Amino acid sequence: MALQRPRGTRDFGPKETAERQRVATQMRNTFRRFGFQEVQTPTFEELDLFTAKSGEGIVSELYDFTDKGGRHLTLRPELTAPTMRFYYNELTMEPKPLKLFYHANCFRYDRPQKGRYREFWQMGCELVGPDTPEAAAEVVALGVTLLRDTGLERLDVRIGHIGVLRGVLRHLGHPSADGRGGLMRAIDKWDEKAIRDGLAEGGVDASDIDWFLSLRDIRDLDGLSSALARAEEATEALTQLRDVVRLAEAFGVPPDIIQIDPMIARGLDYYTGIVFEMDAPALGAEKQLLGGGAYDLSSVFGGEPVATLGFGLGFDRTLVALDAEGKRPEARLGIDVYVAPIGDAPRERAVLLTTGLRRAGLIAEVDLMRRNPGKNLKAADTRGARYAILLGAREVESGQVGIKDLASGDQVDVPLDRVVEWLTERLVPGPAAEVPA
Amino acid sequence: MALQRPRGTRDFGPKETAERQRVATQMRNTFRRFGFQEVQTPTFEELDLFTAKSGEGIVSELYDFTDKGGRHLTLRPELTAPTMRFYYNELTMEPKPLKLFYHANCFRYDRPQKGRYREFWQMGCELVGPDTPEAAAEVVALGVTLLRDTGLERLDVRIGHIGVLRGVLRHLGHPSADGRGGLMRAIDKWDEKAIRDGLAEGGVDASDIDWFLSLRDIRDLDGLSSALARAEEATEALTQLRDVVRLAEAFGVPPDIIQIDPMIARGLDYYTGIVFEMDAPALGAEKQLLGGGAYDLSSVFGGEPVATLGFGLGFDRTLVALDAEGKRPEARLGIDVYVAPIGDAPRERAVLLTTGLRRAGLIAEVDLMRRNPGKNLKAADTRGARYAILLGAREVESGQVGIKDLASGDQVDVPLDRVVEWLTERLVPGPAAEVPA
Repeated sequence: MALQRPRGTRDFGPKETAERQRVATQMRNTFRRFGFQEVQTPTFEELDLFTAKSGEGIVSELYDFTDKGGRHLTLRPELTAPTMRFYYNELTMEPKPLKLFYHANCFRYDRPQKGRYREFWQMGCELVGPDTPEAAAEVVALGVTLLRDTGLERLDVRIGHIGVLRGVLRHLGHPSADGRGGLMRAIDKWDEKAIRDGLAEGGVDASDIDWFLSLRDIRDLDGLSSALARAEEATEALTQLRDVVRLAEAFGVPPDIIQIDPMIARGLDYYTGIVFEMDAPALGAEKQLLGGGAYDLSSVFGGEPVATLGFGLGFDRTLVALDAEGKRPEARLGIDVYVAPIGDAPRERAVLLTTGLRRAGLIAEVDLMRRNPGKNLKAADTRGARYAILLGAREVESGQVGIKDLASGDQVDVPLDRVVEWLTERLVPGPAAEVPA
Repeated sequence: MALQRPRGTRDFGPKETAERQRVATQMRNTFRRFGFQEVQTPTFEELDLFTAKSGEGIVSELYDFTDKGGRHLTLRPELTAPTMRFYYNELTMEPKPLKLFYHANCFRYDRPQKGRYREFWQMGCELVGPDTPEAAAEVVALGVTLLRDTGLERLDVRIGHIGVLRGVLRHLGHPSADGRGGLMRAIDKWDEKAIRDGLAEGGVDASDIDWFLSLRDIRDLDGLSSALARAEEATEALTQLRDVVRLAEAFGVPPDIIQIDPMIARGLDYYTGIVFEMDAPALGAEKQLLGGGAYDLSSVFGGEPVATLGFGLGFDRTLVALDAEGKRPEARLGIDVYVAPIGDAPRERAVLLTTGLRRAGLIAEVDLMRRNPGKNLKAADTRGARYAILLGAREVESGQVGIKDLASGDQVDVPLDRVVEWLTERLVPGPAAEVPA
């Protein structure tokens, strides 16, 4: 076959589409219970939007192109920059807090590998306005609730505060104390050699470098407070982190899945406070499902600074994690009723019956292939029908029709003009109501 | 503001997103009742896919680009070619009929104008396998039902048969009798001068040209049969057209909205039988909402020929038509409950209450801005909350809390540990259940 789908992309058949939509619907409902509202932005944006946010380096990973009008555009690699562009373009006057979420596809020119695709889906949100620990706690809890509501059982939540990291660097007299630049990226990737080099270049002595590296192993607040007793520069951020963790529990996060991680740096320069990442241990190496924090993108947009919290969740990887736990929802694609005329004469009558069933809300199909009765019963079975009806000239004449239950094999005779009523009583709410919307 | 969304694209805020999703959900449910199942294909495809189907001329309207691996790709301009590529790649062995639908964005490099965007949404379907009038009738009826289920009141359906048109051309001895080439495109656009020229070039004499042009005004089957009595070459197709119209009525299409239109040519070469278009008269000039027919794309894919029927529906234009009729669904974005602590002490208790409400399925928000009680009541109102709860130290101590109904202004005192139960009884099913999925 000459024409294939492009490398690193996917086609989703009916079953996979239904399963993905079921998880997406569940997540949308969780966002809504938290008061978030969905928005949609264009699939492509001006290239400048992403280079302004993430630097020129990002271009090598983008699907960028020049359109026929000479505009330098790119398929979006993520949704925070587009959502905040929308905010600065049109939504700055909306009442705060503004709670926005999205579910959309993103694009990354990247070597395809297991669980990583060139077109992939993200769920995410931005909470614009409040600068309080309860706002940060709500966003953390939202991420946890989203993932747990899908049925995912094992989840690790790591929370840090960019201010703690900056406070420590300030305490050590390091020039990256504003939390920007290469050292933060080395910390984000935990490249120990690059961190040692970066700290040494900033004039930090060897014993302080060892002390800094040892902080990474601390995973609880009391331990971190003791370790940072000497670094007053980090105290305020530490207090905020403590408030957020306490409130996140009130927002529904089970305390036993939270770890403190003082070394979350998130790689980008615009984070301002709480930062967090969530992992599915079931996944092994590439296990991070979600990452986010408090940030300020106003410099990118030349607008008024505004406190913002948000996260992005890898939708595809979440499904892989559900698979790994055996928790992926199985979609039932069956139909309610399969109607088959016997011969040509009752064809129109069979179509009328099918139309009546559909109007009553049932999923109904009528034979379109002019099969014989035996093949039609087989087709009904293949199609996953609950009931099958064979409608011959005899049935039309007698006004009595046999309804066959394909699970039990039982057949019941029902007056033709009562078939819709009989089936509706038994089938609603049935598969029709269960199909994800 | 320097960074704007690209020309011809749109951002959708919460209200518009909810309204669009409500219509999309309704359409999905209609597709499902007809036994169709949703599939998803990549946002970009190899450029060759669309030039093989539509010719090189389409490139001027595409968002095509070369990726970093040197592949010539394009954002999809439509969904039939990708869906049939998916079919020929992976689905040829699936049981027939195969009933697939999709709802996805497409892209067209085009002068933006009212109701036409560079990124736009299509709903559509392909029914693969059957070559019967009932299959064609079902697809026509599906299009009508989709549009009418949205609440659209006025709809015109025009049905023709490419075989009638070809039969007439054959009767006239015209070399385009296979229904291909420039004459068919002239007919599709109804460019009368080009049609006259094309017929004359094919050796058709002046009186036959006048007769051909007069066929366009015939809008019923009996009239068309009389007019074509002399053209036996069109008889078989005319009989098929009659069967399809009769069965479409059995599939639920009101007879009074059907017009026969022998001149629907659909502009592309691969149509093989029934062709149809549906218009919203409320729209005036650009009124076509849906177009489709029976086709065979096997030559594009080098695969086995397979009978296929399908249509594409302009989702954006359908919304404009609903607007024009005043039938666009109005989304309610309000929340169920707004919880506000009075002062700092009850904050954690307020968060716990909010979490309990959310776990019960309600849409609940808690003050994140540390507002005073008066401003919080105003915020609850702005947010469209049904109920507001102010939780002070006094309420926590007494165990009694006031629940304020923001519509009536009434306030009821309820024990704090019964608030979730009290509200759930009154609010489920409420806005939470009504939000489109």
